[in-house]
Amino acid sequence: MSYDRIKVESLRDKVVTAEEAAKLFENGMVVGSSGFTKAGDSKAVLAALADRAQTENVQVTLITGASLGHGIDGKLAEAGALKKRMPFQVDPVLRKKINAGEVLFIDQHLSETAELIHNKNLPAVDIAVLEIAAIFKDGSLLPTTSVGNSVTFANEAKQVILEINLAVSEDVFGIHDIYQSEDYPRRNVIPIVACENRIGRKTIPFDVSKVSAIVFTNIPDSPADIAAPDEKTTAIASHILAFFEKEVALGHLTESLLPLQAGIGKVANAVLTGFKDSSFKNLTMFSEVLQDSTFDLIDAGIMDFASASSITVSQECYERVFNNLDKYRDKMVLRPQNISNTPGLIRRLGVIAINTAIEFDIYGNVNSTHISGSKIMNGIGGSGDFARNAYLSIFVTQAASKDDKISHVLPMVSHHDHTEHDVDILVTDQGLADLRGLAPRERAQVIIDNCVHPDYKEELQSYFDRACVRGGQTPHLLEEAFAWHIRLSEQGTMKK
Amino acid sequence: MSYDRIKVESLRDKVVTAEEAAKLFENGMVVGSSGFTKAGDSKAVLAALADRAQTENVQVTLITGASLGHGIDGKLAEAGALKKRMPFQVDPVLRKKINAGEVLFIDQHLSETAELIHNKNLPAVDIAVLEIAAIFKDGSLLPTTSVGNSVTFANEAKQVILEINLAVSEDVFGIHDIYQSEDYPRRNVIPIVACENRIGRKTIPFDVSKVSAIVFTNIPDSPADIAAPDEKTTAIASHILAFFEKEVALGHLTESLLPLQAGIGKVANAVLTGFKDSSFKNLTMFSEVLQDSTFDLIDAGIMDFASASSITVSQECYERVFNNLDKYRDKMVLRPQNISNTPGLIRRLGVIAINTAIEFDIYGNVNSTHISGSKIMNGIGGSGDFARNAYLSIFVTQAASKDDKISHVLPMVSHHDHTEHDVDILVTDQGLADLRGLAPRERAQVIIDNCVHPDYKEELQSYFDRACVRGGQTPHLLEEAFAWHIRLSEQGTMKK
Repeated sequence: MSYDRIKVESLRDKVVTAEEAAKLFENGMVVGSSGFTKAGDSKAVLAALADRAQTENVQVTLITGASLGHGIDGKLAEAGALKKRMPFQVDPVLRKKINAGEVLFIDQHLSETAELIHNKNLPAVDIAVLEIAAIFKDGSLLPTTSVGNSVTFANEAKQVILEINLAVSEDVFGIHDIYQSEDYPRRNVIPIVACENRIGRKTIPFDVSKVSAIVFTNIPDSPADIAAPDEKTTAIASHILAFFEKEVALGHLTESLLPLQAGIGKVANAVLTGFKDSSFKNLTMFSEVLQDSTFDLIDAGIMDFASASSITVSQECYERVFNNLDKYRDKMVLRPQNISNTPGLIRRLGVIAINTAIEFDIYGNVNSTHISGSKIMNGIGGSGDFARNAYLSIFVTQAASKDDKISHVLPMVSHHDHTEHDVDILVTDQGLADLRGLAPRERAQVIIDNCVHPDYKEELQSYFDRACVRGGQTPHLLEEAFAWHIRLSEQGTMKK
Repeated sequence: MSYDRIKVESLRDKVVTAEEAAKLFENGMVVGSSGFTKAGDSKAVLAALADRAQTENVQVTLITGASLGHGIDGKLAEAGALKKRMPFQVDPVLRKKINAGEVLFIDQHLSETAELIHNKNLPAVDIAVLEIAAIFKDGSLLPTTSVGNSVTFANEAKQVILEINLAVSEDVFGIHDIYQSEDYPRRNVIPIVACENRIGRKTIPFDVSKVSAIVFTNIPDSPADIAAPDEKTTAIASHILAFFEKEVALGHLTESLLPLQAGIGKVANAVLTGFKDSSFKNLTMFSEVLQDSTFDLIDAGIMDFASASSITVSQECYERVFNNLDKYRDKMVLRPQNISNTPGLIRRLGVIAINTAIEFDIYGNVNSTHISGSKIMNGIGGSGDFARNAYLSIFVTQAASKDDKISHVLPMVSHHDHTEHDVDILVTDQGLADLRGLAPRERAQVIIDNCVHPDYKEELQSYFDRACVRGGQTPHLLEEAFAWHIRLSEQGTMKK
């Protein structure tokens, strides 16, 4: 029976419908909600807020872990319920509202949101909405498929709405590692020295007097869309695997490499899938999201342990993992995102980071977020946390797309998320550019030689050559730097 | 007698002239040299290499801690002795050669160079040139006025030339804290939890069999050029101090603030000097360079402790500190730069970072390094290490310069070193923009309202307004984004 999930019996009279709980939101409030890459998000209460906002003026600032599932962000945006949103989103309806200036969006490094809240560099959180699997006798909360910023929201919010998701078994107990750093100026070390280290509690310590409503749901997470590898992603993956093999042959890495981080998407999936037929073994992962490929590698006996902040997988994989938790419990851990993504741990563990670019330029600067300088797609997510601090920072993208009308390798990126300082390796389906130890002018030639689509090679070489004549450490022709983007906007193609 | 400085007696027959030592360099070698912001650099051997290169083809890759003094970088560049240079420089002659494409320069986060060498992401170091004050009986090395990357060079180089600088007393023993992290994959925590923690040895452990030459010098460091505060720097400093006072009044910070980092230059100097007449007390510093103002604050009893990688001060201050080391020894420490600047410690300690921008844009992106997109000035230095991981990241610049022909607040920066994700507060002599919790469109308005010079306000507002009509999360008009830089290049002024 569902009430068994509330083991503090006095709280059972807090159970209400989602509609009733949604009445607690007031116009102008700051709301903190669980949810990280569609995992462990609020399924009912935020949806009820969207419904309420259709007829009432109730507009909030919504802070989550990362993206939400079930189209909730779109419903909230459509209903006018969002004034401001952070730190990440992937919803097409919300994206449109953000780019129209109707919703204000703050694109944040995912490790930083909890820090900003805790340090009062963001407004106080009025109300938290947290999906959980159970409330334990000591008042502590058992998260579901993600941890995200829930620990911070539970600590910092003035009141808390709990969503108990009966679709998630209490068997998830033990897959989470709940730890937060101390307050300034007395912050201690985070004592993780290997992916598999558990340093905290299994549940979120919580003051139950802050509970203002409890809502039951029984809705699984939105499944991940796993695109099958195609010719381009397979080419990218094979370039990366060949690179790793070379590094092992040189003695720079062992066949266990170092802990892997992979951004979401089909390229990362193709790379990880590629490990299945390789000689690498005893791999580990220190990432933000565990995807299908992670569990495939665990099942294949190639990956020993995976640490992240959420599990975002296909329906098939979801059933495989959550119906067999005993098999996976000692092979994975979910951490708060200000631990999974914290710079100090990424450098300490020596993470190999693989993330997706929208475009990159001849000097190795990467745009992960914006189309033609202005319009955001999703957000920077954790890519900056990992790329800056990684042992190796790899970015991947296709060389060209849309019938090759768009080149993803450009004279200058139209928006900078990762500067050349933070990028070691660039990969397209055309090839791999190893930028380590290269000065900008050397980088440019290697990128032009290895990464750009043949249709754009001559013009990119011409840009670089003519810029070099004018001089500089990173020679540019500012009057032409965005000519390709401008052509795309005016003529529908970057081609001359 | 100078030979007393070599306490391993068997090494005394390694003493040669600088000219003889410089014969050890071979064309194509990778050279690692001590020196960080003009402190503790090679005074004789690199100069002798420059002399040799005037008549011989001997060109090397030179890696240092940061900038060198005594015009050495310029002499080396002028003589054609530099093929590649990293990670930082401030020399006008070298700068010209870099921008002409005659010397390849890699601009690196100062915390990363040692990591890159250690992880073999840079070529192996053939020969190191290290200024020291003494070689101890156990073979360990006593650094002088900086630590920089000397520990890594001492460990990794195949052979080592030691420059014993008699101008630096052996009394410096005890001001250094020498610690390096373990190798991957067994790296442990760096156990610093407060600025004043000492976690390592007082000297650099060293295998004396690698010594190929020892040279004596008796030349002090190049003194820092300390510009007196002027109207603009005083205005910037007063905006920042007023901001800190407000944060204390709000209860966000105490009157001890949190550990301060300040970039080199007259603004940082003016800010720190401003603390002298304030109510702040028990300040600490976790920075990369200790400047005159640090010691002024220590002398005034306002600063308790300062941690960095070098001491770069005026001649007056140099004498004050190094003739009174007993007074300062327990109030400061010099660390390797991959410790002083390491991301994990900066976040753990909650550093308040104050760095100088060349220009910033309406969304808060900062250019610290390049003029009009192409030509480098100095380099990113440690600003990225600190800004990304700081509790508060502050950037300062004058609103306009050169008879106001140049605006330092622009539609889009021509080179990105720090993205909007990493910038909390922007300050010019016009005012302060507090960007915390603001989305890009809000940031733009606050920056236009507070920071831009009046002569440019209307045009900047017009750019932003017209870009907003076109839409986006960070609205831009790509065809106009660099119009101000292009006008400057064509007409000598950014004004219409």
